[in-house]
Amino acid sequence: MRVLGIDPGLRNLGWGVIDADRGRLRHVANGVIHSEKGELAARLLWLHGQLTEVFRTYQPTTSAVEQTFVNKDAVATLKLGQARAIALLVPAQFGLDVGEYAPNKVKKTVVGVGHAEKQQIQHMVKMQLPGAVLNGPDAADALAIAICHAHYYGAQHMKVRA
Amino acid sequence: MRVLGIDPGLRNLGWGVIDADRGRLRHVANGVIHSEKGELAARLLWLHGQLTEVFRTYQPTTSAVEQTFVNKDAVATLKLGQARAIALLVPAQFGLDVGEYAPNKVKKTVVGVGHAEKQQIQHMVKMQLPGAVLNGPDAADALAIAICHAHYYGAQHMKVRA
Repeated sequence: MRVLGIDPGLRNLGWGVIDADRGRLRHVANGVIHSEKGELAARLLWLHGQLTEVFRTYQPTTSAVEQTFVNKDAVATLKLGQARAIALLVPAQFGLDVGEYAPNKVKKTVVGVGHAEKQQIQHMVKMQLPGAVLNGPDAADALAIAICHAHYYGAQHMKVRA
Repeated sequence: MRVLGIDPGLRNLGWGVIDADRGRLRHVANGVIHSEKGELAARLLWLHGQLTEVFRTYQPTTSAVEQTFVNKDAVATLKLGQARAIALLVPAQFGLDVGEYAPNKVKKTVVGVGHAEKQQIQHMVKMQLPGAVLNGPDAADALAIAICHAHYYGAQHMKVRA
């Protein structure tokens, strides 16, 4: 299966694509969709168009998004919710499942502990995807989400088949 | 001009269409897009598809959305942000401007005061749009947003022409 992981954000939306075949992982591509400050509708349109292009280019068979951190800053929560809507809408428009994983579940799967530094995540993503050149921390997070989904979704599907 | 007003909500998204010609308003249509509880991605896909259909059917030339109330309930704020992203994305996909108005500005324009009850809004919307049959409070709010936009956007455009 081909997994597209998404780390949603209005300013920087990270994405990462991997192939997973019976536990074997292979890096395909990763990147960040950046939206400049400006009118919100225009930014959402840009994110939607760019993310649609990523789906068209890499043709994933399943996808996953990081569960949103609800924090005390309501304005930040609102912004994140808006970016996250795009991250959920686009896979659904391609008829794909969208897995959702809490940040500490992603970290625990990729790093082994729930509270890991950004650097540690990048290191472990590189270890598990040899040859991958990471386009910054948001793209690394997106690949970590894809790895997490490959692990849980893959396991689920094997159970169903058994 | 033909204005489409949107009152965003994940569960109930109100919409209302009016024609505005030099201060004269005419009701065209109003309704509510309802999304049942379930997977968030599926709900956003449904809202997106239904709202796209409203734009295709009524061909508005401009649109407006109510500014979001950021409140203390972070989960509610997140949900509203996700519904609002759809309300901003769809007009942008049709190449339309999206006006944004604070709730009390909408009320002040339609009712005359910033703090009005739902019933009062419905009454004034009916007064200003004779013959309109309102499909509930969310549709009435959407028409109020459209009236507000017709007022401010129309005035702006007249200034530009003068």
